[in-house]
Amino acid sequence: MAAQRRVAALTRQLTSAPAELEGFDPVPAVSDVVGETDTAFDPRKLYEFITRDNIQLRDAAMEFMQDDLYKPNYYQGLMDFREQTLQRLQKFVDQRYFQTMDYLKNPRKFMAGLEVLALCDYSLAIKAGVHFTLCGGTICKLGTAKHHEKYLPGLDSLELPGCFGMTELGHGSNVLGIETQAVFDKDTGEFVIHTPTDTASKFWIGGSAQHGKIWFEHVRIPRDALLNRFADVAADGTYSSPFPTVGQRFGVTVGGLTTGRMLIAGGGIDASKIGVCIAIAYACQRPQFGSRYIMEYLTHQRRLVPALATCYAMHFTLCALKDIAFSPKPDAKAVHVLSSGLKAAATWNRTDFDVDTTFEGDNTVLMQQVAKALLESAAKSKSKPQQPALGPGQALTPASIQQLLQFRQDALVAQIGGEMQQASQAAASTGGKAAAAAANSAFDANLDLVVALGWAHMEARSHQIFQDEVAQAPQQLQAPLRSLALLFGLSRVERNAAFYLSQNALSRPHFQAVRLFVNETLSRLSSNGGETLLRLCAGFGIPDHLIQAPIAFDWRCIGRDL
Amino acid sequence: MAAQRRVAALTRQLTSAPAELEGFDPVPAVSDVVGETDTAFDPRKLYEFITRDNIQLRDAAMEFMQDDLYKPNYYQGLMDFREQTLQRLQKFVDQRYFQTMDYLKNPRKFMAGLEVLALCDYSLAIKAGVHFTLCGGTICKLGTAKHHEKYLPGLDSLELPGCFGMTELGHGSNVLGIETQAVFDKDTGEFVIHTPTDTASKFWIGGSAQHGKIWFEHVRIPRDALLNRFADVAADGTYSSPFPTVGQRFGVTVGGLTTGRMLIAGGGIDASKIGVCIAIAYACQRPQFGSRYIMEYLTHQRRLVPALATCYAMHFTLCALKDIAFSPKPDAKAVHVLSSGLKAAATWNRTDFDVDTTFEGDNTVLMQQVAKALLESAAKSKSKPQQPALGPGQALTPASIQQLLQFRQDALVAQIGGEMQQASQAAASTGGKAAAAAANSAFDANLDLVVALGWAHMEARSHQIFQDEVAQAPQQLQAPLRSLALLFGLSRVERNAAFYLSQNALSRPHFQAVRLFVNETLSRLSSNGGETLLRLCAGFGIPDHLIQAPIAFDWRCIGRDL
Repeated sequence: MAAQRRVAALTRQLTSAPAELEGFDPVPAVSDVVGETDTAFDPRKLYEFITRDNIQLRDAAMEFMQDDLYKPNYYQGLMDFREQTLQRLQKFVDQRYFQTMDYLKNPRKFMAGLEVLALCDYSLAIKAGVHFTLCGGTICKLGTAKHHEKYLPGLDSLELPGCFGMTELGHGSNVLGIETQAVFDKDTGEFVIHTPTDTASKFWIGGSAQHGKIWFEHVRIPRDALLNRFADVAADGTYSSPFPTVGQRFGVTVGGLTTGRMLIAGGGIDASKIGVCIAIAYACQRPQFGSRYIMEYLTHQRRLVPALATCYAMHFTLCALKDIAFSPKPDAKAVHVLSSGLKAAATWNRTDFDVDTTFEGDNTVLMQQVAKALLESAAKSKSKPQQPALGPGQALTPASIQQLLQFRQDALVAQIGGEMQQASQAAASTGGKAAAAAANSAFDANLDLVVALGWAHMEARSHQIFQDEVAQAPQQLQAPLRSLALLFGLSRVERNAAFYLSQNALSRPHFQAVRLFVNETLSRLSSNGGETLLRLCAGFGIPDHLIQAPIAFDWRCIGRDL
Repeated sequence: MAAQRRVAALTRQLTSAPAELEGFDPVPAVSDVVGETDTAFDPRKLYEFITRDNIQLRDAAMEFMQDDLYKPNYYQGLMDFREQTLQRLQKFVDQRYFQTMDYLKNPRKFMAGLEVLALCDYSLAIKAGVHFTLCGGTICKLGTAKHHEKYLPGLDSLELPGCFGMTELGHGSNVLGIETQAVFDKDTGEFVIHTPTDTASKFWIGGSAQHGKIWFEHVRIPRDALLNRFADVAADGTYSSPFPTVGQRFGVTVGGLTTGRMLIAGGGIDASKIGVCIAIAYACQRPQFGSRYIMEYLTHQRRLVPALATCYAMHFTLCALKDIAFSPKPDAKAVHVLSSGLKAAATWNRTDFDVDTTFEGDNTVLMQQVAKALLESAAKSKSKPQQPALGPGQALTPASIQQLLQFRQDALVAQIGGEMQQASQAAASTGGKAAAAAANSAFDANLDLVVALGWAHMEARSHQIFQDEVAQAPQQLQAPLRSLALLFGLSRVERNAAFYLSQNALSRPHFQAVRLFVNETLSRLSSNGGETLLRLCAGFGIPDHLIQAPIAFDWRCIGRDL
């Protein structure tokens, strides 16, 4: 069938554009590219390969969440649900899987403990994340010994529930613009915290009792409460900091948000994993119109299998991000770029969950930051985009797919950077300030491309990371992972085909070949009753009690006990 | 600025592909195409223009829903929420805005009464829709006088709450495959209704008390209960029907689902309207990074303004559908195609609402039905796709956009139809059955294109309808509606640019021109503090008390009373 389709496609292409296609086979058999898929790989081996740390902790915490308190309950109202979330957090905290100070001392353990929660209850995961990361992590990182001694034991036990009041009603992305006042009163040695306007109220604040709003009416705070590792105020009111500029102080203060951003990215990825596991399990056992399972339909394969590939791609990208972030001397800019891009990509990938796309950095703003970093680097290096050498008749391979993805990033950098430079030069005669403003206007006029560049970077990056992981995987896992990596790359090329066609980086036959190649990869991965897909899902290591959707199991029995 | 951008773009194009672009201005000023926009149009005039019937009924029902019972309450649990929905329905029913029999006698009034509910509470709208349309409408259409007399008064007053048990756990889209048994017992003159297997249980049944499942254990029903307008069973068990084939009886029986499908499409459109109104109202008054409103950012314009255009396009498409469906002699096939396509397009447009995309016809299956109808018509007509005559240097206009959209539909029909025909011919020597099976396999192997064809048809159709409406609109409304129609069409061409580039229907400069043209249209529509956008939103005629989101009003006061 597959071969037939290839022949039919080639015949059509050869008829419509003969000169271009002499001897052209743009659709190699998938097995030529990825090797034969042996479905007999062990999902536990896959889980162990993709889970780089704290496997015992994760297994124990997932096992613990078999507790009745963590069973889903869709019938309660909001207040009961909040109370339940608190109870779930307390019982989890009582297990002491990690300590707040692990934020600094053993960040992989700290993250592993929190990551497991997202598999069970995302509200619980966010409540725990606010408590341990935003509040606890901030005290760890910005505070000094006196604060650690005073607050961390209470945070570890949840006797002291934490919240984090940065966002104000009028100031989300613009953190430097917040209005809350902290005035030092020399006479009493206190800070007076005050909310001067409606827009200064602390808003959407997780962990702030029942309403997410905090308003200060000249609240007096002892001077000692100031987290003074990177800036201090002396008894006489003198301000001091080892960092001379506002920018540096701002950077070191908000740099701690990276862990939260990584956890949110992980939450988005894990939610997608669960969704994909449920949908594939159901699709492989649900017949429609006779005995054909819905997983056998191309439309269903197109919906679910690239989503499965994306889960793996983003999971491996998060692994790579942790390697950079938790290395002995992390490159702060590299961590910022990859954590921003992955948070945006992972949460946009999950369309039903608003708050994830806006908190800890609005996704649109984060993708702009990714793009800005790339534009800055390019301005220094002056290198030109490499048009991929995908000549007529040349087949698509992982390497050529990577070239295409990289080319899109580089071409967008060149286009946006070129427009900014052109605008800046045109305004240069009226002064440096006008030139900078003109460059900013050009950036703004191309914001659609700026966000596309953020995506292009994440796609090129994730595909490269995925290919590197395939190469390092145990032998039995290589073929199935290689198929997924191929599908991930191909589906990104397909999604951005207009760009490639417009740049002559893909010919018309290549464009048609990409579609057929995607369809064949889907068909191959979905064969044998979906055995390979089911094992790839099982490789996420999510136990049945955390899947929680009846249709993922024997759906014919649903409602038998109603 | 806009002119500057055009010049910059042209310069770039002329530098990169000079031969192709001699004297080429693919980006006319938007005002050349749509005329000058006078922002001073009256939103009420717009509301009256787009609302074709029952304005008084709609106004009265919206006014009625200021009642406290209809105020949002996000704190209650599921059981309380269900009770509230029932109370809301009872109070609404008590107003007697329409009667069940209007389903046949005055379908526009019937729909108007139900459409208003979707603006207030979608759960209420669905509960009312199941009661009046699926249950009541079925009794009206398939029943005879004795059923009307017996059941309709109780339905009108809600003393007799209705439900509709078609879907079974194992049989959603495959309605012909349901397993529930109805065996006639001649001796007692009763039907014995029985559920023989788990998969035969009636499932996801709205209105079926607390659990959406119905199981029959040899339930006896008098012969008279059979809705016998189109088929009957005599006292001696003889079956009779004026329709000789199963297909015809099936068609006439499920044909009544069209009204529900139109209501669901309308619900999807109205939900989008509310979302767009809230988001645009907030974006026009929310500054970020200083005094710039977020509506001024291109990324925000790209997110919201095409969505606003889509609301109008789909609204007008629903108007056109009603004109066809409620004409004296409706073309059943035309109604089926347009109602199926619009239901799928309108509910897929609203990504957060699963049930809408699967009930009353799964969207993927509905789009296949649209495609099948087009393939059947094309097989008869043998006409060839018209490659648009958009030569180098020719500007994009509403007419050329319509040609492009129509060309995509026709080219997809030709591609899928061609593959089916080829497969059929190749298998013809082994018999007609084998040839038909081969054609079906080719259809299945191209299911991705089949669904794309369903979309292509809806886009071409909606754009044409939108343009026709612009031409008929009162003078003061023409310019703003023309801008929206242009944006709707351009954004569809942009979304499918890969297809057009691969078919040489768009050149590379045209591709770049489409993007710049979209951006300019967005910039123009969003100017003046968003005044035009806000009036276009107000044109939907949704009163403030049904908008319900604090951020749509004076967001600086949010939480002042917490």
